[in-house]
Amino acid sequence: MPKRRGRISGRVGLPPGALVYTGEKRDEESKVTTIEYGEAIFEEQTANLFAGDFPSEGKTTVTWINTVGLQRVENLERLGKRFRIHNLILEDILNTEPRPKVEDLDDYVYLRIKTLRYDREKNEVGVEQVSLVLGENYVLSFQDSESDVFAPILERLRSGKGRLRRMGADYLAYSLMDTIIDNYFVVVEKVGDRIEMLEEELTGAPTPQTLHSIHQLRREVIILRRAIWPLREIIAVLDRGESRLIRDTTTIYLRDLYDHTVQLIDTLETLREMLTSSLDLYLSSVSNRLNNVMKVLTIIATIFMPLTFIAGIYGMNFHYMPELEWRWGYPASLLLMLAIALSMLAGFRVKKWL
Amino acid sequence: MPKRRGRISGRVGLPPGALVYTGEKRDEESKVTTIEYGEAIFEEQTANLFAGDFPSEGKTTVTWINTVGLQRVENLERLGKRFRIHNLILEDILNTEPRPKVEDLDDYVYLRIKTLRYDREKNEVGVEQVSLVLGENYVLSFQDSESDVFAPILERLRSGKGRLRRMGADYLAYSLMDTIIDNYFVVVEKVGDRIEMLEEELTGAPTPQTLHSIHQLRREVIILRRAIWPLREIIAVLDRGESRLIRDTTTIYLRDLYDHTVQLIDTLETLREMLTSSLDLYLSSVSNRLNNVMKVLTIIATIFMPLTFIAGIYGMNFHYMPELEWRWGYPASLLLMLAIALSMLAGFRVKKWL
Amino acid sequence: MPKRRGRISGRVGLPPGALVYTGEKRDEESKVTTIEYGEAIFEEQTANLFAGDFPSEGKTTVTWINTVGLQRVENLERLGKRFRIHNLILEDILNTEPRPKVEDLDDYVYLRIKTLRYDREKNEVGVEQVSLVLGENYVLSFQDSESDVFAPILERLRSGKGRLRRMGADYLAYSLMDTIIDNYFVVVEKVGDRIEMLEEELTGAPTPQTLHSIHQLRREVIILRRAIWPLREIIAVLDRGESRLIRDTTTIYLRDLYDHTVQLIDTLETLREMLTSSLDLYLSSVSNRLNNVMKVLTIIATIFMPLTFIAGIYGMNFHYMPELEWRWGYPASLLLMLAIALSMLAGFRVKKWL
Amino acid sequence: MPKRRGRISGRVGLPPGALVYTGEKRDEESKVTTIEYGEAIFEEQTANLFAGDFPSEGKTTVTWINTVGLQRVENLERLGKRFRIHNLILEDILNTEPRPKVEDLDDYVYLRIKTLRYDREKNEVGVEQVSLVLGENYVLSFQDSESDVFAPILERLRSGKGRLRRMGADYLAYSLMDTIIDNYFVVVEKVGDRIEMLEEELTGAPTPQTLHSIHQLRREVIILRRAIWPLREIIAVLDRGESRLIRDTTTIYLRDLYDHTVQLIDTLETLREMLTSSLDLYLSSVSNRLNNVMKVLTIIATIFMPLTFIAGIYGMNFHYMPELEWRWGYPASLLLMLAIALSMLAGFRVKKWL
Amino acid sequence: MPKRRGRISGRVGLPPGALVYTGEKRDEESKVTTIEYGEAIFEEQTANLFAGDFPSEGKTTVTWINTVGLQRVENLERLGKRFRIHNLILEDILNTEPRPKVEDLDDYVYLRIKTLRYDREKNEVGVEQVSLVLGENYVLSFQDSESDVFAPILERLRSGKGRLRRMGADYLAYSLMDTIIDNYFVVVEKVGDRIEMLEEELTGAPTPQTLHSIHQLRREVIILRRAIWPLREIIAVLDRGESRLIRDTTTIYLRDLYDHTVQLIDTLETLREMLTSSLDLYLSSVSNRLNNVMKVLTIIATIFMPLTFIAGIYGMNFHYMPELEWRWGYPASLLLMLAIALSMLAGFRVKKWL
Repeated sequence: MPKRRGRISGRVGLPPGALVYTGEKRDEESKVTTIEYGEAIFEEQTANLFAGDFPSEGKTTVTWINTVGLQRVENLERLGKRFRIHNLILEDILNTEPRPKVEDLDDYVYLRIKTLRYDREKNEVGVEQVSLVLGENYVLSFQDSESDVFAPILERLRSGKGRLRRMGADYLAYSLMDTIIDNYFVVVEKVGDRIEMLEEELTGAPTPQTLHSIHQLRREVIILRRAIWPLREIIAVLDRGESRLIRDTTTIYLRDLYDHTVQLIDTLETLREMLTSSLDLYLSSVSNRLNNVMKVLTIIATIFMPLTFIAGIYGMNFHYMPELEWRWGYPASLLLMLAIALSMLAGFRVKKWL
Repeated sequence: MPKRRGRISGRVGLPPGALVYTGEKRDEESKVTTIEYGEAIFEEQTANLFAGDFPSEGKTTVTWINTVGLQRVENLERLGKRFRIHNLILEDILNTEPRPKVEDLDDYVYLRIKTLRYDREKNEVGVEQVSLVLGENYVLSFQDSESDVFAPILERLRSGKGRLRRMGADYLAYSLMDTIIDNYFVVVEKVGDRIEMLEEELTGAPTPQTLHSIHQLRREVIILRRAIWPLREIIAVLDRGESRLIRDTTTIYLRDLYDHTVQLIDTLETLREMLTSSLDLYLSSVSNRLNNVMKVLTIIATIFMPLTFIAGIYGMNFHYMPELEWRWGYPASLLLMLAIALSMLAGFRVKKWL
Repeated sequence: MPKRRGRISGRVGLPPGALVYTGEKRDEESKVTTIEYGEAIFEEQTANLFAGDFPSEGKTTVTWINTVGLQRVENLERLGKRFRIHNLILEDILNTEPRPKVEDLDDYVYLRIKTLRYDREKNEVGVEQVSLVLGENYVLSFQDSESDVFAPILERLRSGKGRLRRMGADYLAYSLMDTIIDNYFVVVEKVGDRIEMLEEELTGAPTPQTLHSIHQLRREVIILRRAIWPLREIIAVLDRGESRLIRDTTTIYLRDLYDHTVQLIDTLETLREMLTSSLDLYLSSVSNRLNNVMKVLTIIATIFMPLTFIAGIYGMNFHYMPELEWRWGYPASLLLMLAIALSMLAGFRVKKWL
Repeated sequence: MPKRRGRISGRVGLPPGALVYTGEKRDEESKVTTIEYGEAIFEEQTANLFAGDFPSEGKTTVTWINTVGLQRVENLERLGKRFRIHNLILEDILNTEPRPKVEDLDDYVYLRIKTLRYDREKNEVGVEQVSLVLGENYVLSFQDSESDVFAPILERLRSGKGRLRRMGADYLAYSLMDTIIDNYFVVVEKVGDRIEMLEEELTGAPTPQTLHSIHQLRREVIILRRAIWPLREIIAVLDRGESRLIRDTTTIYLRDLYDHTVQLIDTLETLREMLTSSLDLYLSSVSNRLNNVMKVLTIIATIFMPLTFIAGIYGMNFHYMPELEWRWGYPASLLLMLAIALSMLAGFRVKKWL
Repeated sequence: MPKRRGRISGRVGLPPGALVYTGEKRDEESKVTTIEYGEAIFEEQTANLFAGDFPSEGKTTVTWINTVGLQRVENLERLGKRFRIHNLILEDILNTEPRPKVEDLDDYVYLRIKTLRYDREKNEVGVEQVSLVLGENYVLSFQDSESDVFAPILERLRSGKGRLRRMGADYLAYSLMDTIIDNYFVVVEKVGDRIEMLEEELTGAPTPQTLHSIHQLRREVIILRRAIWPLREIIAVLDRGESRLIRDTTTIYLRDLYDHTVQLIDTLETLREMLTSSLDLYLSSVSNRLNNVMKVLTIIATIFMPLTFIAGIYGMNFHYMPELEWRWGYPASLLLMLAIALSMLAGFRVKKWL
């Protein structure tokens, strides 16, 4: 769970609604991209800070303001003032830790979602947070660090193809969520693939490393569940159509999104059960191997202890041991040992140890 | 879980409603069978592609169009256009992965169900997906690969016996679902039989192979649950009778279907509990065998170590060892060893190890 | 789970409502007992087949038709026709496998309950199924095989004592259910007794047989739960008093029945928890015994290995070994061994292994 | 679970509402205490049997009739007749086994609660049952055996202090329940104390006895849960204020009682989790000890086996063994053995076994 | 679980509403701080006992009376009388044990919350209880022992900065709860940090101490859950806005608090799952180590037992053993031993034990 430590506790003692950036301190500048579009219009501007005096009254176009990098609190304050966003919501946007949620405040809807990224090098799932504010004819989006999760949406807006430019701000918000959730499938399937590889390892030759893989995968499934479970509720809230900001034409798309979320949860639960089953299999195969090791030891000991004992007997130095002087004493003792060993082996075969 | 990999993630970045076939690419042609029937009428046509200009206005007959093979997206587009089906639904039909669901869109009801097939050779459960679209007087059905799951329905339609030809499209949709769910029983019972065989194995002589069977069966039960659990909700939605497309006379049949689904779920849960119990039994019997192995080892070691030690004593080469020169030293030492061994055995008998 | 196999899958491909007997084929005749009673009237007839022309219009008496043996489908058809019972219900009666359920069809209420029987010889729980159809002034009951579960009711009807003859058909249906559920207590208590015996075994000397008893009891508790859990819902449905067939005076008895069912479920859950706890106890005591076995082995090996080694030293044949020629070499070596053995024992006492 | 066996099954075949005492047969007489009180009045009478002709019409006082000992069915019949109590309720009072419940029959409310007692000698929880019938201006209470659970209430009534004499019958019923539930706290805390002692044992030196304590405590927590869980629902039913017998002024006290019950359940669940955790700890420490035992054995065997082998080599009787004749052969062999032993020990230190 | 013992059971036999202090007896004086504030007013007084004749009618200011130390029951009685608080509520305030709850009594709202404190020395979570009574224009708060949890609120009131002085008593109550819940994050994160340290230990070198850490952390998570779970319900009750004491402007802050609580619960559940996973990992690595120990033992025994046996053979004293007289007998026997040892080692390599 990357970047978990020391976040929220840094806020203790502050009054509610105080704007304090609790993420990692970095030197990077924040980047604010403002896009205004309609069916025939497309304008794009990039700045380090929101200008604060954006005129949008009486417009028929949709405005999307995407902020990357939250460490400049000033930027957030300007946006909050311009779009009349409650201080507690701004505090939520700054807080890079909390769980996904939705809040409908009549004038705008606030959405907080996790974005997942699969880090191929570390073979690990990374979690980021995206906040969306959907208003009458605008969408504000906030990310803490640069990522290309919204790139396909931007591409579709620029090209003007498809439905996106013709629909309202609610459809844009839906599209942003849709692209995030599509990414979940990639991550969940990666985890699924690793679980399948694990299963193959288990039927082959499990090593202690296998155990650590199971543990690692369980942790990742926990992270994924934390990100994905709340989504179902969030989309259900939007889907219920109580907000006037969400048009009827968008509802069917939200239902589709809901469907995807349920499927993700379903897959996650399946992965979880598979992991449980894998752990059981691993532990059982460890027990089996222990059993086999013990059998080998027992067979060896059971055969050689009596033999060594007999050799010990005839190694004693008593003066009067008649067998020692017999002509065939030595071969006879060897035959005796052989007979004992063979009967032992026969006994093991009866016990199905061999 | 066959064919799980790489499906949905193939859609990342596409706009919602884009029609892309995500199943296995194959060269087979798709097959579209169009059946039109009424109480006295029965017509059947087969083509590779839906003609697209099917006249059905003002008809009193029921039309069933069964498509096998989804890789020709063109076919789906024609059907979608002709029957005014929303693009997201068409996308769902093409997507061969997702979980079962129902969607009531007033003009038609969309149903997605899994079909199960028991592969005798691999001794494994195979999962396919069937989509049904139930409209005013038509049913569209979509399968990705040829199967004979609908053969009994076709037979009954052709023969004209029974209730089927006299009832509407909703009863046809019910019959298709009924035949799919009847097939579930076959698969679930097969799995049940294998679990019973496993139990017999467990009371007899469990091997490490038994463990893999348990693991394999657990996975299959997981697959079955994934297919069957959502069904209950789906049929409950239909049964609630909110759709105008489902007549009252069909409701009792749906309730019967609901009943079957609940029974399937019930059986699955029982199988699951039996598997859990079997795993516990297996692990416990492994522990017991380990215990027995250890007892044998301990008995052998406990008897022979003291004896070998005594033999070692009289094998020492000290010049002054009076026992060595005694006339009855050798037999006396043998008797001593015998006494020790016997008292050891008696001790084990007291401890109930023998 | 006796008689589970091959039942429902035998129906695959048949149209819904087709009457096919799926139980065991037997040569026994079915037996139909028709009882007509009122406060002062009692008539009883037995036949192999329902006559089919039973006049019951305008009667004030109650009619109870008890069918034992379902293999003659003809009998069921006649009853179905006479009492206008839906084909799907008749199909349900024939199907000897499904889970308990209730269905209220206005003109009659259909009930399906499991009867439990404790087989003393096999020490096993047997499950049968009883179907009840409660109509305006009649009760139909169906059993697949002869049993004396309804004998007390019959006796009370014959003797005319108590409330039974004065009340309506709904009270008769209640009485039949009550007598079945009273039988559950006998079976559940038998299982409870065996679990208590098991617990005593566990605190005494558990054997691998104990493990199989736990496993067997778990399976029986699973069977019992399957039979009893759905009952709660069924009786709750009847109790809610929506059916006009159930009089208000009967409702308090149904509530009492509901109470019994809840108590049965409660007891079953307790038994289940006790079994889980017993299994844990068993596994732990197996671990403890393994520990003890290993301690014995370790003590023996730790004491004798050094001693045997010393004996081995003085059994070496080097020409120049001064100790061998010492006058007190032999007793000194024996004393050394004794000292080593004693200090070993002291060490074990410190480690609390002895 | 004391006195569980053979209770309810003794009722099989009896018609519902038949009054049969199913508790232990005893020779003790039953004792009926009748108390009549108002703000200024207090009368107390004790008899062996309820007189049956108790005049209570038009009274403004409250009557409390406490019956100890249920084996005289006659007494119950008289009370039932006098206060018009339904036969099924009387049957419930006699039945000393069932789970807690509440039943509101308009004219009176029937309550069945378990009383818990901690048996210091057996170190075990004992369960009894109390039935309460709350009517317009009377409370009937029934206990199977003498106990002092109601003593504080009696004392408060006699002394006339506090609210009790001024309030109605519903407050008396509440007070009786309150005193019973206060006793639960004592029992639950006793069990809690024993679990804490167990935890200390576990961190110190767990013995197989510890395991039996865990098992015993788990069983007791199961018993406690069975007694306490249903209470929450019962008090919630009373609290909902639907019965006209419960005045508004009493509702706040019932809510307080509800609060206590929730707290008891909460504590029980915590105890259950602590027991689960303790069992895990116990099993893990058993595994750890096994590990340690095995390490000791392995160290001993690994050191002495090679040494004994070397001693064996030079104990061989070959005629041509040059080392045997070397002047320093013996000390050299001893040095070799020492070197081997030391390198072994070093190896173990590297593996962190020492 | 500190200070759990002997609390509530000390109340057995007392009438409901009796004021008895059940916490630890101490000599400390109680401290009552009375603060009166408005937008421009701030007055603060400290005494040992509430004066009892506090005039507050017709005031527009808000009064906050904070009591530290509950052992002086007299103080509570005076406050209860002055603010007309029900005796059962006063009893609840004195009872330092129960679970968090809320009670809305129209004239005032009673809240009971746990405060958590992380004891750095004992490395343990400590639990205290705070009671709040929110009235028209006053807040009463009660703590059993001195703590600085309310210090930031006091500071904000004194400084007059921010929203606090301008808002009503409900906002003060919210602020007090908010500061308590902010403290939860600190404690939960501490526990989270220790779990992460544990995980690192587990992947490195787990010791039996690790096991006790897991056990200790599980107990602490249990304590935290007990404190935090009921909070969700409590805040939901306040948030629902049914009480006239809570203004609309405060509702959004309560929703924010609710959100924090849900996040805390979410984190706790994650920690719990991580602990479960850690325990599994620990147990598995113990099993793995046992396996390794056994392998070493088996390898040593398997190699040296046959060798020692051969040495034993040639140590026998038979007169006629031809090999003993061979010129190369000794080296040949050594070579034989070497060959045996090497083939053993090769066998282990094949079995992947080396």
